[in-house]
Amino acid sequence: MAVDANSGGGYKRAVGLPPGTLIHVGKPRTDDVGLSVINYSPSDVVERRISVEECDGLLGSDTVTWINVDGVHDLDLIRTLGERFNLHPLLLEDIVNTRQRPKVDEYADYLFVVLKMLYMQEEDGSLGGEQVSLVVGRNFVISFQEQPGDVFDPIRSRIRGAKGRIREAGPDYLAYALIDAVVDNYFLILESVGDRVEEMEDRVVAEPELNVLRAIRQLKGDALLLRRSVWPLREVVSSLARQDSALVRPGSLPYLRDLYDHTIQVADTVETYRDLIGGLRDIYLTVISNRMNEVMKVLTIIATIFIPLTFIAGVYGMNFEHMPELKYTWGYFATLAVMLIVAVGMLIFFKKRKWL
Amino acid sequence: MAVDANSGGGYKRAVGLPPGTLIHVGKPRTDDVGLSVINYSPSDVVERRISVEECDGLLGSDTVTWINVDGVHDLDLIRTLGERFNLHPLLLEDIVNTRQRPKVDEYADYLFVVLKMLYMQEEDGSLGGEQVSLVVGRNFVISFQEQPGDVFDPIRSRIRGAKGRIREAGPDYLAYALIDAVVDNYFLILESVGDRVEEMEDRVVAEPELNVLRAIRQLKGDALLLRRSVWPLREVVSSLARQDSALVRPGSLPYLRDLYDHTIQVADTVETYRDLIGGLRDIYLTVISNRMNEVMKVLTIIATIFIPLTFIAGVYGMNFEHMPELKYTWGYFATLAVMLIVAVGMLIFFKKRKWL
Amino acid sequence: MAVDANSGGGYKRAVGLPPGTLIHVGKPRTDDVGLSVINYSPSDVVERRISVEECDGLLGSDTVTWINVDGVHDLDLIRTLGERFNLHPLLLEDIVNTRQRPKVDEYADYLFVVLKMLYMQEEDGSLGGEQVSLVVGRNFVISFQEQPGDVFDPIRSRIRGAKGRIREAGPDYLAYALIDAVVDNYFLILESVGDRVEEMEDRVVAEPELNVLRAIRQLKGDALLLRRSVWPLREVVSSLARQDSALVRPGSLPYLRDLYDHTIQVADTVETYRDLIGGLRDIYLTVISNRMNEVMKVLTIIATIFIPLTFIAGVYGMNFEHMPELKYTWGYFATLAVMLIVAVGMLIFFKKRKWL
Amino acid sequence: MAVDANSGGGYKRAVGLPPGTLIHVGKPRTDDVGLSVINYSPSDVVERRISVEECDGLLGSDTVTWINVDGVHDLDLIRTLGERFNLHPLLLEDIVNTRQRPKVDEYADYLFVVLKMLYMQEEDGSLGGEQVSLVVGRNFVISFQEQPGDVFDPIRSRIRGAKGRIREAGPDYLAYALIDAVVDNYFLILESVGDRVEEMEDRVVAEPELNVLRAIRQLKGDALLLRRSVWPLREVVSSLARQDSALVRPGSLPYLRDLYDHTIQVADTVETYRDLIGGLRDIYLTVISNRMNEVMKVLTIIATIFIPLTFIAGVYGMNFEHMPELKYTWGYFATLAVMLIVAVGMLIFFKKRKWL
Amino acid sequence: MAVDANSGGGYKRAVGLPPGTLIHVGKPRTDDVGLSVINYSPSDVVERRISVEECDGLLGSDTVTWINVDGVHDLDLIRTLGERFNLHPLLLEDIVNTRQRPKVDEYADYLFVVLKMLYMQEEDGSLGGEQVSLVVGRNFVISFQEQPGDVFDPIRSRIRGAKGRIREAGPDYLAYALIDAVVDNYFLILESVGDRVEEMEDRVVAEPELNVLRAIRQLKGDALLLRRSVWPLREVVSSLARQDSALVRPGSLPYLRDLYDHTIQVADTVETYRDLIGGLRDIYLTVISNRMNEVMKVLTIIATIFIPLTFIAGVYGMNFEHMPELKYTWGYFATLAVMLIVAVGMLIFFKKRKWL
Repeated sequence: MAVDANSGGGYKRAVGLPPGTLIHVGKPRTDDVGLSVINYSPSDVVERRISVEECDGLLGSDTVTWINVDGVHDLDLIRTLGERFNLHPLLLEDIVNTRQRPKVDEYADYLFVVLKMLYMQEEDGSLGGEQVSLVVGRNFVISFQEQPGDVFDPIRSRIRGAKGRIREAGPDYLAYALIDAVVDNYFLILESVGDRVEEMEDRVVAEPELNVLRAIRQLKGDALLLRRSVWPLREVVSSLARQDSALVRPGSLPYLRDLYDHTIQVADTVETYRDLIGGLRDIYLTVISNRMNEVMKVLTIIATIFIPLTFIAGVYGMNFEHMPELKYTWGYFATLAVMLIVAVGMLIFFKKRKWL
Repeated sequence: MAVDANSGGGYKRAVGLPPGTLIHVGKPRTDDVGLSVINYSPSDVVERRISVEECDGLLGSDTVTWINVDGVHDLDLIRTLGERFNLHPLLLEDIVNTRQRPKVDEYADYLFVVLKMLYMQEEDGSLGGEQVSLVVGRNFVISFQEQPGDVFDPIRSRIRGAKGRIREAGPDYLAYALIDAVVDNYFLILESVGDRVEEMEDRVVAEPELNVLRAIRQLKGDALLLRRSVWPLREVVSSLARQDSALVRPGSLPYLRDLYDHTIQVADTVETYRDLIGGLRDIYLTVISNRMNEVMKVLTIIATIFIPLTFIAGVYGMNFEHMPELKYTWGYFATLAVMLIVAVGMLIFFKKRKWL
Repeated sequence: MAVDANSGGGYKRAVGLPPGTLIHVGKPRTDDVGLSVINYSPSDVVERRISVEECDGLLGSDTVTWINVDGVHDLDLIRTLGERFNLHPLLLEDIVNTRQRPKVDEYADYLFVVLKMLYMQEEDGSLGGEQVSLVVGRNFVISFQEQPGDVFDPIRSRIRGAKGRIREAGPDYLAYALIDAVVDNYFLILESVGDRVEEMEDRVVAEPELNVLRAIRQLKGDALLLRRSVWPLREVVSSLARQDSALVRPGSLPYLRDLYDHTIQVADTVETYRDLIGGLRDIYLTVISNRMNEVMKVLTIIATIFIPLTFIAGVYGMNFEHMPELKYTWGYFATLAVMLIVAVGMLIFFKKRKWL
Repeated sequence: MAVDANSGGGYKRAVGLPPGTLIHVGKPRTDDVGLSVINYSPSDVVERRISVEECDGLLGSDTVTWINVDGVHDLDLIRTLGERFNLHPLLLEDIVNTRQRPKVDEYADYLFVVLKMLYMQEEDGSLGGEQVSLVVGRNFVISFQEQPGDVFDPIRSRIRGAKGRIREAGPDYLAYALIDAVVDNYFLILESVGDRVEEMEDRVVAEPELNVLRAIRQLKGDALLLRRSVWPLREVVSSLARQDSALVRPGSLPYLRDLYDHTIQVADTVETYRDLIGGLRDIYLTVISNRMNEVMKVLTIIATIFIPLTFIAGVYGMNFEHMPELKYTWGYFATLAVMLIVAVGMLIFFKKRKWL
Repeated sequence: MAVDANSGGGYKRAVGLPPGTLIHVGKPRTDDVGLSVINYSPSDVVERRISVEECDGLLGSDTVTWINVDGVHDLDLIRTLGERFNLHPLLLEDIVNTRQRPKVDEYADYLFVVLKMLYMQEEDGSLGGEQVSLVVGRNFVISFQEQPGDVFDPIRSRIRGAKGRIREAGPDYLAYALIDAVVDNYFLILESVGDRVEEMEDRVVAEPELNVLRAIRQLKGDALLLRRSVWPLREVVSSLARQDSALVRPGSLPYLRDLYDHTIQVADTVETYRDLIGGLRDIYLTVISNRMNEVMKVLTIIATIFIPLTFIAGVYGMNFEHMPELKYTWGYFATLAVMLIVAVGMLIFFKKRKWL
């Protein structure tokens, strides 16, 4: 279920070990992990795909180096990278344990940012989450994803094409661009969640069944996952934008503030959706109880109409010797007529009272 | 629905582009956009309607220039204005993306304010929102609306007629006047929402049907839209009134504080309406269940009265050979009398217990 | 309704006018407004009732002058006073627009305080609100009421009789005494609201009808009005007590802190009443549903007892030729006896199960 | 009711009087009030019981004097004490008006602390509150109780027996000890409230009747009284522990912090109980509706079983001339058998569906 | 019940005693308590198990000493330790009173930390809590547990094996490691609570009975216990990580911040579980009422079908002399056929309306 994305599953192995011990917590994978490296300066771009052994001397003196790692289950690779770039063991532990909350940690020589990337799972249309970690140094950015993905592709092509100011700016701007790509992706997720909410509003009225209730809970879980990804992110971006690190250049601040506005917009919309989803259950219950009432009312009205008629029939079914009506030639038909009149009268009465 | 006014729809096109890329997000329009320019000083007013090419040399050294743009879908115009007035690309992006939250951004040479103007949509009486952006410089104000509107007309005539202190004051006072016009407009909206709430309170008792529930949800959405327009505005006005910018002169501060009081009044009333609207659903459910109970009670009482009567009829419908009552001449009528007594007795009993 | 006391009604006329334009918003009145003036010093008191033309030279060099205005609909009077005492146009606008929130504004030469006086409306016992504005200068206090009232009478007699330290103290103490009189009045209102809450708790159990629900809503609206009068007042008094103005002398601070305690007490009690009122609706629903259940249960039990009896009667109403019981002399009476036993047995069973 | 303990009752007399006027607000008492005085130093203890006239020269130069007053309705006594010890009129007013909120006021020469002592009322087991006021000076403490009580006895015996550091410490430590005694008493109250909550949880399931609902409301009121006594006390103790007064010696701070921990513990437990009490009503409603459903279900099942049987009887009660079954010798018994089979079949069906 | 773990039970004995009096509040135990002592430096480890008389001269000048006490009911031992290590009496009181809230107190020479260790109780699978207290001095840590446990074993083996940086670091790092072990343990607890929540979600749909409601309340109590253990712990760790004590070395800060992240993760997950558990009751009520509605609907439909049939039978049971149908040879069978048609027709109608 969606709530598990941040919760305790898989912790059993890690308990009691010294801090900084690398333990991969997340979806198990075993395939090879490659490093894709982009070196760029205002005038030049070099792209390479290397293995971890080749990652010495990657950094240029006047270029920005972006190393992207598509998988965090390869602990050797992470450890090697950690040694080459002198990363703190706790930071490495957080990279491979994919149950972090979005956060920013400031170290002496680099910033460490943890984000949640969200995507629609193909099986059932529910939300899935993936951890993205960024290490932002003076002239490099290392990004870690759990799985290969295409959300950073537009940034690659902006670097290649020198679109915007990305080539002129430093690693802080690159980090901004990466976070921005993740946040932009939230808007797409929001749109799809919004569609599902609207669809559910129709379904809940049309077919108020127990599995709709289940779908609502699923939606609720997804909104919760969104919320838990976005709210801490707000603080992350806000703390970056407050320029409390020498690694963030003043020129990047307007972009970070803009990004902050976006995260607030996402958070706002998530709250609205949570409200709407919370209302869905109320609608469900109202519709259910309306239906049931409708049924009971009609059935009770049928019973109520026939009960006096049956009583009349019962009266003339009595065996008294002296019942003058029984002797009349038209007694039977008169009785049937009376019954009809009673029935129609009651129907009119119910109609007038708007009970039908 | 109302909630969409600030949400993710239409974001698909913008994802992945470099920041500062101009993409119009909002209701699509294609018609021409004009600029209306007012130059005023304590002694003089000049009004012109120009095209974007003519906007050089608009600013006078000792006059205040107000440029109003009635449409943000013409990206060329926005871009040209941006170049002439040296506006930050992110600011331009926010102007054309009409899904911003109300906010104030401080740049070196100007303040950037985003507001939401609200209006009643003619189709269905629900609320619609329009984004108004203000750029407030040292001697100019540029205002951007999504559509031509008449909410700023009173300010134009105050400038023309030199009513109040507007001609003596600077662009900060003009910006105040524009925001004040938007907030004044909220009071009208509030009045109409208040009327709808009261009307709904009557309707919910008179005709508690499912489409009333729908109307309540619509009202709720409108109140939410109001809230999301007003709450961030409070912070905007409060931050302007705290005089943290050289662009806001001390003489304007009392006016901004007054404006702040107004936004608090609006926010307060919105909260009250939200409370009342939240209560509407409870009233609806109570009324519905009261009605249903009323129906069921009456029907059950009818059934309950006839069941013992039918039983009596059933007794004398038995075919025992030795049933002395059957032989009595008045047996039948006595039985009918007993039935009448039982029925009336039960009715009296029910009446006494206040079940009828 | 009570909620309107602070809301948007009557704003239509004011929209679009320059700030500082005097527009009376409130209950329309047309009668003449007089000024009552008290000049006092530790040794002397002079009371006069003057018209607005005579208000020059009112202020003495070593006396405190209290000018009370019993009505704010006379815009000329307000304007004249404003000119004589050099009051800010926005302040005058707030005085005549009686839909302000309680607040304190600090101007260079005076403090401006807005309060809400509450009173029980005679027509229907609901709460009404009246705006009281105070302008506190170095040697004068001007108080504005919407209608002549007697809540300030005790203070007048304290000035006349030199009771307490009022004659020794300055205008800040007088202002404190006026606000204190308003807050003391809240306690009376609270007492009457408390009585109504208790009365309603009994009524809701005794006669749970729809108009009780209406009375609860009325009570809720009154509590809301109280709340909206008291909560901002807390901030007003707290900001006065924090001695951030040269107009408040240190000797008055203990009194303001005491006043602050009182406003907190009022606010606390209001919250308690709001809680209790919120619970009333739950009690109402519980009582209603208990009653309905009681009715349905008794009726269903009656039906349930007669249905088996009717079945027995039905059995012996069958026309089979070979039904030995029908021939027995005592068959009929035996059957009646069986029916009685069944009925009594079921009653005992229901009694034991505590269904009756 | 419990909520009145802090509310407006009895205020009518006080409205309009100058501040500092002594008016006893609380349970009326007329009996004599005595003063008990303890003078102690590390080496010596002197206890006396005096009348108010004898209270001159009570304070020793190197001893701590604790004056305990068992009643605040004797306004002359309070006034005399106020004069002797130079107490502020507002402080005296707060002592005799027993509707204060717990608070601490700092005066130049003494601290004024207001607390609420709680006790179980013997009549109905509900909570009652009593106001305890402390004036803490440089070498004395005056404590005011509404009624003679024994909660301070352990402290007296600690002073007499020189247990702990009380004799070595100053009046601030004595004040701490008195407040601590009141807070310790809260734990006893909590225990009894906890017992009542548990008892109520059983009762609500066993006998869900309307007077249980009443008992729940009583419990709720008691929890509210506790809360309103404890929450402001937290702030009182916290502000004392922050050492913002010269009257609190550094050596007492660890004790005050410990006391602060205790008040938080009490506040925490109160919140937990409030939660549980809030849940009681839900349990009540669930149990009630479960019971009602149980009844209705059984009754409906009885009716449902007999209705088809009655139909069968009705069929063979028809008077058609050609009804072959009526002629069969075993027709009657066969019909009875069919009826039995139908009834048993339905019972089995209901059983299988778990409706019984 | 779980809520008692922090509440008032057992306080009766302690009321009225001077502060610092040692009173064991917690599960009664009488067995002997031993001290296990580990002395370690980067180069060396010495482990001993001693009695309290031998604890002089335990501390080495260049080693870290960790003294673990497995039980706090032996007041003599606590008192002796307190004297040897010069611990404040209030601190000792808090150690033996196991109803503390997690907190950190800073004394001149040591920090005092209180934690809650949680474990699953074997009897009924519910959560139990145990108090762990730490005294962190310049070169020693004393840890107090209520019962011997194995949660600190991994740390012992890390010290023995010199795994990680524990041997190089000081007592602050040891304290961090101990708190970390407790927090790691929370993750295991969370996992089991999560399993129980998921299990309960299935059970509540499968067998919605009153004892499920009881199990939900138990789960709620456990989540509350977790919450009350974790939330104050957040503040504890946060205050340690803000380096406001000379006893916490800068090198330990990243570890404390990492620990802080973990406590936030735990707190987050607890809130999510609380949400889910809160929803369980709603699901329960929905399932219950759905079931009941299902039953009532089917029963009512059965009754409704037979009532018109019984009416028809009643009609032909009337004793009129002139009822032509009664004479027809096929009248009886025709009537039966009509009844069948009516019954089937109604069933089809109900089916179409989806009432069946």
